[in-house]
Amino acid sequence: MDSGALLDLLGNENRRRILRLLARKPCYVTEISEYLGVSPKAVIDHLRRLEEAGLVESRTDEKRRKYFNIARNLRLEVTVSRHGFGAKSAYPASRDLDLTRCHHLSIDGVTAGNTDVDADVDGDGDPEAAVASLADDLAELENLERELSLAQRWVQGRLADVRDDLAETIEADDHEGLYAEVVAAVADGADGIETLSRRVDAPADVVEHALNDLHDRGILEPDDEGGWSVTGSA
Amino acid sequence: MDSGALLDLLGNENRRRILRLLARKPCYVTEISEYLGVSPKAVIDHLRRLEEAGLVESRTDEKRRKYFNIARNLRLEVTVSRHGFGAKSAYPASRDLDLTRCHHLSIDGVTAGNTDVDADVDGDGDPEAAVASLADDLAELENLERELSLAQRWVQGRLADVRDDLAETIEADDHEGLYAEVVAAVADGADGIETLSRRVDAPADVVEHALNDLHDRGILEPDDEGGWSVTGSA
Repeated sequence: MDSGALLDLLGNENRRRILRLLARKPCYVTEISEYLGVSPKAVIDHLRRLEEAGLVESRTDEKRRKYFNIARNLRLEVTVSRHGFGAKSAYPASRDLDLTRCHHLSIDGVTAGNTDVDADVDGDGDPEAAVASLADDLAELENLERELSLAQRWVQGRLADVRDDLAETIEADDHEGLYAEVVAAVADGADGIETLSRRVDAPADVVEHALNDLHDRGILEPDDEGGWSVTGSA
Repeated sequence: MDSGALLDLLGNENRRRILRLLARKPCYVTEISEYLGVSPKAVIDHLRRLEEAGLVESRTDEKRRKYFNIARNLRLEVTVSRHGFGAKSAYPASRDLDLTRCHHLSIDGVTAGNTDVDADVDGDGDPEAAVASLADDLAELENLERELSLAQRWVQGRLADVRDDLAETIEADDHEGLYAEVVAAVADGADGIETLSRRVDAPADVVEHALNDLHDRGILEPDDEGGWSVTGSA
């Protein structure tokens, strides 16, 4: 979708709070309304706009209650500089993307872009050669920027896949994804109840219960320093 | 700055248009007001908010006229997925950043993250081993995401530096940066007046004049197919 329209949508604190809430679990209008302290009418209006933009979708469960969830993965990048204001949005790249075709994306590429950028900008030599050298650097950096952006979209798509797989493997439907989130946070290096509680946005006692349950199931194990790690993980 | 506050600022079409305009050249309030078709009072209000956020700054020239320009480079990344809504903003990384310390940032790192992600998610084997494998993949992808983000901030900072150097080398103060933009667009592969005119957002005759002038100065040269290239560039 158009990045301007997306910025208009995201430029509202309540809509951002709705997205944050739905990313945790699918919700009914009244749940969202109570959580936000905003009237159901206003919530319905926000949801309609998010739905029209394809960010949110709704389903009706067996009790005929309509709940809303995040419809798709999306990425938005905005850059502001003296040389331009740019916003671009994109869906995650396909998992089949062949990143080896990104010729510029490597440590070598990055540091190559760093050489002789300052060649003769003092103007005490050949200005045409300085312009040519700067133009080469610019083209190189712009290619690198495009490839980094593509790589990030690929990573975002893969992250969503792995988190889906994790939630499926842990089979924690009744915990609304919290168990998978706890395992993901532990895998990402978070240990200690306080850090985990902040990361997964749940009370400490709930996190402690999840940790003990996941320990009983052999998925997590405590380490010597009061932290946790994933059993058998590198 | 806080990414929520930044999204609030950017979630307004007129403020985005002001940023886009100021990225082309510093402007007075009346210029902005006429360009946008918005009252000076409203423009002043938008500028005040952008100034408070540190995105825009003002200077007073020798005629005591106050003009506004982009104050700094900034980058904002927003991701929306079933597993989270995240927004982070950052200033470009220092040019001295040692990217060789980014262990995950390479083609090898990217493709390594792609192996055995699907190990045993069907649950027909050892679920603990599957969770451990997925947890490793997740940690790897999250490291990669952080390093890609850092690399992009570095690239953005370098791009701004090179564009500054280019503008300085071409010494095109009287052309308000248009010449440097034209050279940058040619360096990035744009050729043909129409494409260039769109890229630098200037009328075709203005671009044609700039091309001819840059040709006279030995900076650009026409190729056989009606396009242009930077003299001596790779």
